[in-house]
Amino acid sequence: MNTDHTQHILIIGGVAGGASAAARARRHSETAHITLIERGPDVSFANCGLPYHIGGEIADRDRLALQTPESLKALLNLDVQIRTEAIAVSREKKEVTVRRLDTGAEETLSYDSLILAPGASPIVPPLEGIEHERILSLRNLQDMDKIKAAAETTDSVLVIGAGFIGLEMAEQLRHIDKKVQVVELQEQILPQVDPEIVAPVEGEMTKHGIELILGDGVASFSHENDLVSAQLNSGKTVSAGLVVLSIGVKPESDLAKDAGLELGPRGHIVVNEYQQTSDPSIYAAGDVCETLDPILGTRTAIPLGGPANRQGRTAADHIFMGNNALAYPGSIGTSIVRVFDQVVATTGYNEKRLLAAGVDFDTVTINAHSHAGYYPGALNVTLKLLWRTSDGLILGASAVGADGIDKRMDVIATAITGKLTIDDLCNVELSYSPPFGSAKDPVNIAAFAACNIRDGLVTPALDLSDDKLQLIDVRPAEMSKIRPLDPSFGAKAIPVSQLRNRLDELDQSRPVTAVCALGKMSYFASRILTMNGFEARSVTGGLALNPDLAK
Amino acid sequence: MNTDHTQHILIIGGVAGGASAAARARRHSETAHITLIERGPDVSFANCGLPYHIGGEIADRDRLALQTPESLKALLNLDVQIRTEAIAVSREKKEVTVRRLDTGAEETLSYDSLILAPGASPIVPPLEGIEHERILSLRNLQDMDKIKAAAETTDSVLVIGAGFIGLEMAEQLRHIDKKVQVVELQEQILPQVDPEIVAPVEGEMTKHGIELILGDGVASFSHENDLVSAQLNSGKTVSAGLVVLSIGVKPESDLAKDAGLELGPRGHIVVNEYQQTSDPSIYAAGDVCETLDPILGTRTAIPLGGPANRQGRTAADHIFMGNNALAYPGSIGTSIVRVFDQVVATTGYNEKRLLAAGVDFDTVTINAHSHAGYYPGALNVTLKLLWRTSDGLILGASAVGADGIDKRMDVIATAITGKLTIDDLCNVELSYSPPFGSAKDPVNIAAFAACNIRDGLVTPALDLSDDKLQLIDVRPAEMSKIRPLDPSFGAKAIPVSQLRNRLDELDQSRPVTAVCALGKMSYFASRILTMNGFEARSVTGGLALNPDLAK
Ligand SMILES: Cc1cc2nc3c(=O)[nH]c(=O)nc-3n(C[C@H](O)[C@H](O)[C@H](O)COP(=O)(O)OP(=O)(O)OC[C@H]3O[C@@H](n4cnc5c(N)ncnc54)[C@H](O)[C@@H]3O)c2cc1C
Ligand SMILES: Cc1cc2nc3c(=O)[nH]c(=O)nc-3n(C[C@H](O)[C@H](O)[C@H](O)COP(=O)(O)OP(=O)(O)OC[C@H]3O[C@@H](n4cnc5c(N)ncnc54)[C@H](O)[C@@H]3O)c2cc1C
Ligand SMILES: CC(C)(COP(=O)(O)OP(=O)(O)OC[C@H]1O[C@@H](n2cnc3c(N)ncnc32)[C@H](O)[C@@H]1OP(=O)(O)O)[C@@H](O)C(=O)NCCC(=O)NCCS
Ligand SMILES: CC(C)(COP(=O)(O)OP(=O)(O)OC[C@H]1O[C@@H](n2cnc3c(N)ncnc32)[C@H](O)[C@@H]1OP(=O)(O)O)[C@@H](O)C(=O)NCCC(=O)NCCS
Repeated sequence: MNTDHTQHILIIGGVAGGASAAARARRHSETAHITLIERGPDVSFANCGLPYHIGGEIADRDRLALQTPESLKALLNLDVQIRTEAIAVSREKKEVTVRRLDTGAEETLSYDSLILAPGASPIVPPLEGIEHERILSLRNLQDMDKIKAAAETTDSVLVIGAGFIGLEMAEQLRHIDKKVQVVELQEQILPQVDPEIVAPVEGEMTKHGIELILGDGVASFSHENDLVSAQLNSGKTVSAGLVVLSIGVKPESDLAKDAGLELGPRGHIVVNEYQQTSDPSIYAAGDVCETLDPILGTRTAIPLGGPANRQGRTAADHIFMGNNALAYPGSIGTSIVRVFDQVVATTGYNEKRLLAAGVDFDTVTINAHSHAGYYPGALNVTLKLLWRTSDGLILGASAVGADGIDKRMDVIATAITGKLTIDDLCNVELSYSPPFGSAKDPVNIAAFAACNIRDGLVTPALDLSDDKLQLIDVRPAEMSKIRPLDPSFGAKAIPVSQLRNRLDELDQSRPVTAVCALGKMSYFASRILTMNGFEARSVTGGLALNPDLAK
Repeated sequence: MNTDHTQHILIIGGVAGGASAAARARRHSETAHITLIERGPDVSFANCGLPYHIGGEIADRDRLALQTPESLKALLNLDVQIRTEAIAVSREKKEVTVRRLDTGAEETLSYDSLILAPGASPIVPPLEGIEHERILSLRNLQDMDKIKAAAETTDSVLVIGAGFIGLEMAEQLRHIDKKVQVVELQEQILPQVDPEIVAPVEGEMTKHGIELILGDGVASFSHENDLVSAQLNSGKTVSAGLVVLSIGVKPESDLAKDAGLELGPRGHIVVNEYQQTSDPSIYAAGDVCETLDPILGTRTAIPLGGPANRQGRTAADHIFMGNNALAYPGSIGTSIVRVFDQVVATTGYNEKRLLAAGVDFDTVTINAHSHAGYYPGALNVTLKLLWRTSDGLILGASAVGADGIDKRMDVIATAITGKLTIDDLCNVELSYSPPFGSAKDPVNIAAFAACNIRDGLVTPALDLSDDKLQLIDVRPAEMSKIRPLDPSFGAKAIPVSQLRNRLDELDQSRPVTAVCALGKMSYFASRILTMNGFEARSVTGGLALNPDLAK
């Protein structure tokens, strides 16, 4: 704990983590000298808003510059030095060497506490032809200006990478009527979310005229005048007047590495719960650092705005409060993106990561109304819950739909913070009046369905390609008529309301798998079947989650 | 635990608690005989939707009847007996006497397990003249039909009671262009929410032409032809063609009382965590029963749809699973109402109830954007947090605004379930992309502000009528010009950005109280003042929460 009144706090990086640390530090001390070093010409800008200015939704560029060096001086008495790059840290001397980018001059600045918040830079793979003025990445206002200007001179854009930023770019570029193609190495968009949950978003993109090229990557680029062509791994070639690269970010940790600070396996700075690096006078915050994964107790790195802001605040607190500061509890990766009328969000772990972590988990996906079905405007929420088999601890969730997705994800993120189980979530009491929820919110329904699996009340149908499959379609007759199942499944249509009287039409020697529209009636049917001596299965999530059954 | 296959489950009350119990019971057993007794002609209807059909928002009346006796027979093989009233319970014989309301005939039905879910009836105080066909309450579809028909024959409606249902009725009646007056005994609408939080809703109602008569009650009614006049305690008389009584509900527990079941202080049936009454063969669920208050560990009664549904489900679980059933953890009273463009919601305790409970608590109210301020459409969220002084445990919250209110309340309701503290809430990681949230969500901001009070970083200004008050208006000059403070406060305008240079204009011997628009700049100002040796205060919530300062 350093309460020396003339202490010097030096901060590298003037945006989310850095500016937040500086602001909080000032609220702890009026006398500390707080210097913010920023390589670019801007500080405190809204990275997350950049795509929306390109698409015109945020019309006024100035709205993205939340603060200027002058306003930070006036408001917080910060010494902001832009166009200044930190190039070396001397831990012994407690000095940082900086270069003034406009003059090339170098200088050393001393510190009592140093906070590293240099963020992460877009990954630019070493591909042939990638260095080109029409192959751009998006990180700051200058990048944005370049992409916006380039987009104005072409009709077609190729977005490489279908992560959150790639999707926002694709949507916004369609918004200004560009022809948009998206290339993604994985077989799905948003690889951090389970594939069935992002499927509706893929459909939404296609519906809006975006061409998705999944399971393919760029091998090399070539150019002819203003046209860039990407040769894909599959041999295919796609061309566009502009390429936006958004295949991920890597921590800007060279400075830390050169200073001998401990780095994690993927190059992130290792910090403790107060954001202190392996040198106690040096803190790190934001995309550059690792953090605790509070769910499984391992380490992770989550390049998101909320964590960056709060980690910066934590570092400032620790400088002034020592171990009385509130420890940063780690990040669970709650994230969200809107793509036209669909919204997809996730928190905590997905299946792929749990499999990789070797955790014994279970999962369910339900469909339920965003608010009371009898009140106008209710839309479907598809919600997937993942929990630890041994004790029901909630490990993660994801959701997709047009309304109320953020709310459900935030509730489950909070549940994860509280280490709640599927049992706890059954009775979590969410606000309900007809425009806002239901007496049984989708979150409760997901927890019920999870407990029903855990308690053996229902067995999810896992393998629909089984030869012995005896599928029954338990939807009301009209629905089965409007959207019939694929005849190859040989399903028999028995509406759940007739099932009790038609059990003799089924072969009791084979398992019976029930399917319906959303997964609720098939659950009801499976209960009837089980209690009548059948080995029953229910197709979780119904046709909504398994649209292939109806093709 | 009774797994006898021919057991008879008898349920009194066929709506939220009763129908949910019946449905869940059927999913536990195909062979049990499940009988649902309902006094009215309808079961499984959407009580919560009734006001919205009167106002025409839910145009189709049929949408409110979620199930019919026939559909419950078909789907769940329930024996539904409508127009049948339970009139006595013989616990020794395990029999219930019922009366067929159409014939007057009486019958006895036996049970192995009995579930009481008769709900609560609207309170009708014994006032002179109250028995009149134009003085109506709203509980079921028949009441709704009567009110709707009566409303069609008059231009003016008097709503007595400004609780959740009273407000929905007032809004919906304005929606169909009635002249609406609301009389409420308390000095505020929604007495279960702290007054400053409902103030914007009161403004919204006035703005929409509703006359609010607060702090006044009805002493008696008189009528002349189709006009009802209410004589108020104040001596005032108000008249209308229709009176809607919505002053609260009382549990329908006479049957339970006559059967000798234990009742709580306000007449609710006492149950354990499995919804079992003092007779282990008899369960109770919904508005008729008490439940645990999990926040302070006392008893409470929460007449809401979600709890009723889940308590019914719990009772059914216990019949089949015994103590392996998931216990009902109690209710915290999360509730919400939309009134025109304003939404107000609450969860857990408010100030009044905490004072009554003698708990040492603290509170803060913040204003923050519903989503990133730089993205179009961000609106103000006013969020109040209450926590236990000793350990920071979150005890309650309320919020008001036009957007994102349900989400914040649901997050805090979940936090309460997880027994989170204000420290935990600082770092809860909510979904953020520009259309949905902020890097620091209003929930985080409220937690920061709470911790800042707890940690002594800021002192809220409590008494603005203090003689020695030295008020400074730290808003930007243009804002102070557009909406000046009331001159009687003698405030000096010093924008926070000038404060460091103008400290000599202040009298250091007296406390300085800073005020701004939302409470953030005044907090910043109070930090500057404190660290410069002033005794400083900040007006929590700014002018948004204290509009009287600007009158
Ligand atoms: C287009 C886009 C959209 C995004 N959308 C979202 C979203 O919707 N939700 C969300 O949660 N997150 C989003 N993010 C991520 C979020 O912006 C980052 O997680 C966050 O900004 C990280 O903060 P940081 O302080 O670690 O780094 P940054 O905000 O990147 O700031 C680091 C700064 O340090 C400077 N710097 C680096 N090295 C040096 C040096 N040696 N000397 C001087 N200065 C240096 C850089 O120039 C940079 O300005 C988005 C990011 C982008 C780019
Ligand atoms: C207009 C209105 C709006 C509401 N809005 C909301 C809202 O937005 N959000 C929310 O959470 N809650 C709301 N509620 C409250 C919610 O509807 C109740 O909490 C819930 O219905 C209680 O369920 P219950 O099963 O205990 O009682 P009820 O749903 O009232 O059902 C009890 C049934 O039992 C029957 N009955 C009673 N005694 C007997 C007997 N002796 N024999 C046979 N039958 C009997 C009654 O006729 C009644 O139909 C609202 C209620 C009303 C009236
Ligand atoms: C602009 C920036 C410097 C502001 O930093 P900041 O002042 O710490 O943050 P905010 O403006 O959100 O204000 C939060 C502070 O005000 C307080 N506050 C906010 N509203 C308040 C209210 N109504 N009443 C009381 N306090 C309030 C909070 O408690 C917090 O103070 P604390 O940290 O001392 O507890 C920084 O957030 C930034 O640079 N952001 C842009 C970059 C970015 O975040 N990018 C990624 C996402 S796009
Ligand atoms: C209509 C009514 C009888 C339905 O009872 P219900 O079948 O228990 O309730 P729901 O229709 O909400 O369905 C919930 C059940 O389906 C399951 N379910 C729902 N969607 C599912 C899905 N997509 N996949 C799997 N299971 C699903 C739930 O797990 C739950 O089953 P469980 O209790 O065995 O775990 C009852 O809710 C009722 O009468 N409601 C109207 C009255 C009322 O609630 N009024 C107050 C509010 S207006």
